[in-house]
Amino acid sequence: MTLAALPKPKLGEPYLLTPGPLTTSAEVKEAMLRDWGSWDGDFRAMTRELRSRILAMLGAGADGFDCVPIQGSGTFAVEAMLASFVPKTGKVLVLCNGAYGKRAVTILEYLGRAHAVLDMGDYLPPRGADVARVLAEDAAITHVLAVHCETSSGILNPLQEIADATQAAGRALLVDSMSAFGAVPLDPSVTPFEAAVSSANKCIEGVPGFGFVVARTAALEAAKGNSQSLSLDLHAQWAVMEQTGQWRFTPPTHVVAAFLVALRAHEAEGGVAARGARYANNRDVLVAGMRRLGFETLLLDDWLSPIITTFFCPADPNFDFTQFYDRMKARGFILYPGKLTRAESFRIGHIGHVDGAVMQAVVDAASDVLTEMNVSSAAPSTASLAERQAHGE
Amino acid sequence: MTLAALPKPKLGEPYLLTPGPLTTSAEVKEAMLRDWGSWDGDFRAMTRELRSRILAMLGAGADGFDCVPIQGSGTFAVEAMLASFVPKTGKVLVLCNGAYGKRAVTILEYLGRAHAVLDMGDYLPPRGADVARVLAEDAAITHVLAVHCETSSGILNPLQEIADATQAAGRALLVDSMSAFGAVPLDPSVTPFEAAVSSANKCIEGVPGFGFVVARTAALEAAKGNSQSLSLDLHAQWAVMEQTGQWRFTPPTHVVAAFLVALRAHEAEGGVAARGARYANNRDVLVAGMRRLGFETLLLDDWLSPIITTFFCPADPNFDFTQFYDRMKARGFILYPGKLTRAESFRIGHIGHVDGAVMQAVVDAASDVLTEMNVSSAAPSTASLAERQAHGE
Ligand SMILES: Cc1ncc(COP(=O)(O)O)c(C=O)c1O
Ligand SMILES: Cc1ncc(COP(=O)(O)O)c(C=O)c1O
Repeated sequence: MTLAALPKPKLGEPYLLTPGPLTTSAEVKEAMLRDWGSWDGDFRAMTRELRSRILAMLGAGADGFDCVPIQGSGTFAVEAMLASFVPKTGKVLVLCNGAYGKRAVTILEYLGRAHAVLDMGDYLPPRGADVARVLAEDAAITHVLAVHCETSSGILNPLQEIADATQAAGRALLVDSMSAFGAVPLDPSVTPFEAAVSSANKCIEGVPGFGFVVARTAALEAAKGNSQSLSLDLHAQWAVMEQTGQWRFTPPTHVVAAFLVALRAHEAEGGVAARGARYANNRDVLVAGMRRLGFETLLLDDWLSPIITTFFCPADPNFDFTQFYDRMKARGFILYPGKLTRAESFRIGHIGHVDGAVMQAVVDAASDVLTEMNVSSAAPSTASLAERQAHGE
Repeated sequence: MTLAALPKPKLGEPYLLTPGPLTTSAEVKEAMLRDWGSWDGDFRAMTRELRSRILAMLGAGADGFDCVPIQGSGTFAVEAMLASFVPKTGKVLVLCNGAYGKRAVTILEYLGRAHAVLDMGDYLPPRGADVARVLAEDAAITHVLAVHCETSSGILNPLQEIADATQAAGRALLVDSMSAFGAVPLDPSVTPFEAAVSSANKCIEGVPGFGFVVARTAALEAAKGNSQSLSLDLHAQWAVMEQTGQWRFTPPTHVVAAFLVALRAHEAEGGVAARGARYANNRDVLVAGMRRLGFETLLLDDWLSPIITTFFCPADPNFDFTQFYDRMKARGFILYPGKLTRAESFRIGHIGHVDGAVMQAVVDAASDVLTEMNVSSAAPSTASLAERQAHGE
């Protein structure tokens, strides 16, 4: 699929093939050319529209849920969710298979909340049966934290079976859906959860500056008094917003205005299904093209997400990632370094205002750069492939 | 003074006479028309420039200080300062004379940090002698929190004598300089302090989306382990930034790009002194004009700030603030409601990309609106004036 109106970014700027900040449309950015008074009725109407558009993305299960935007980066929203919904006497099972699962563990350590960790390494998702087993063994666990798409590898975790196992065990599911929300369905009537977070600069294709939580209204009500941070108290943020229509503290007005334009474009494109389909096509074009050059993906095909793909660095000694990065940037593409502990790798995001034609151009540029660098094959080391085989199935 | 290039805001948008978000220049907003990769070298250079430009505003005392930007609104930065610099065994004296002092108290309650409050009401500043007395009586107090300009009334608190008293007693001063930084001098070699915070959308005239802290490097080093929030841990934010040149978590890239343009314009205008002089002139034009209409300021002249001025609502029964607000908005001026407990009042900010000519236009519009509303005199009730006399001297 080619987007009808997908001009090259202006000013000769590169495409951001990073999982947010990402390339946004000119219309989204142009919405920031105006100052808004945060107390004024016009801006309150914008906040109202934002919240109801996000809620609508939950589909049939939106009833009984509410949306609370919160200032700061996505991590702030994850921390706000954990601090607000997990009571001080609670215990969280963190399903961990990458950097963002690890970060949730760090947050819980800061918060002083009890937790257990199911760590699957870099290549594998936690399965429903694993979750059921751990929950059966530890009655103290009150909440499960799942990372929807673990952006550090690109793995799309099997949220449905995790949600089913969590519900069957009578626990509450919290979802870090940062990089998936808006492109991967998340309907609580299908996939039961208590709360989920994402941010403005991911699949909805806004610019960075705030995150948001979708949560059961009952959970928001019950969250009173849990947070030990004023700024990150989702109950208070929600209660004030319900009462006054305003954010408790100064909102990033321009970022909010841009997000509204992005939300309307999301609907015009066809909502979550269409957005997900464009991103899946982006991935397919990219992965097929890169494989033709010899590159191989970190993950086996089953776990590739429509969000971002990790490639092993080529084994060829002429390959140097910094050089590769700089030469790709000179051609107009900003890549993302790896975030893994074990294998040498890099990542290419396929979310943002980009389509299959852009992905093909990335592949073509990579081909040229390999030639310039005298890399004859982009194939990874056999050790990398063996590691994937051993840990990826 | 009239700014050389001060066109009316585009799109027929109103002037924001609110203390942030405020009216920004077209150039500041146009800097947001580009997407930046937050990991990329170009953006790291922008972060470096931002930090060094803020530090330079401290003047001669900048040595031994560092600047740490932090995502979220200004309140997040205040909370980060309190959570990071006050150890769990510390005790804070909050100098309170309005909503932002009260908010600092709420933050300390959330954080579970011991504190004492010196509450001066709405009309009066805490004086150096008051601070000295409280500190002499309570040896447990480790830190003093002062609000530089208490934006809820507009009072400019006497920071020099507060800083002197705090230093003489061997305690550390933390400053909420949100609405003053960049327009009121804050040189630690003159006014000793440990840390101060402000945000992007105040006197530097950027758009909202992050705050920043200036602090003694030694205090940043010593802050390790104090914060019970990952997101608001200034030590960690600083340490990662020092090591990698990056923000720990996704920065609001567009807001940062806009802020850089605002910082360069701040220097081009003549720095803190020139910015403060323009705002003082804005206030003088506004207050003189409003007094000619019969309006009276909440504060006695000694405590008026160059930032924002609170006016009593007229006693005339035909005056209705909502109507006044709407009619002023229709004429292109967004005012700010009062934030006081006692007196009926409203506020007019004089910071942002506005000058004396704009302030005169505000006065002229207010005059027209009063006529339309059949308000024959804008004078406050004698009770209000008596209250000011009783509590303001
Ligand atoms: C799954 C996931 N969680 C959390 C985050 C953190 O978001 P932020 O960088 O905005 O703090 C990210 C960012 O990419 C993410 O992908
Ligand atoms: C003195 C002072 N402190 C704190 C704040 C809070 O900042 P924010 O609304 O960005 O959270 C403000 C906002 O106007 C302020 O003026």
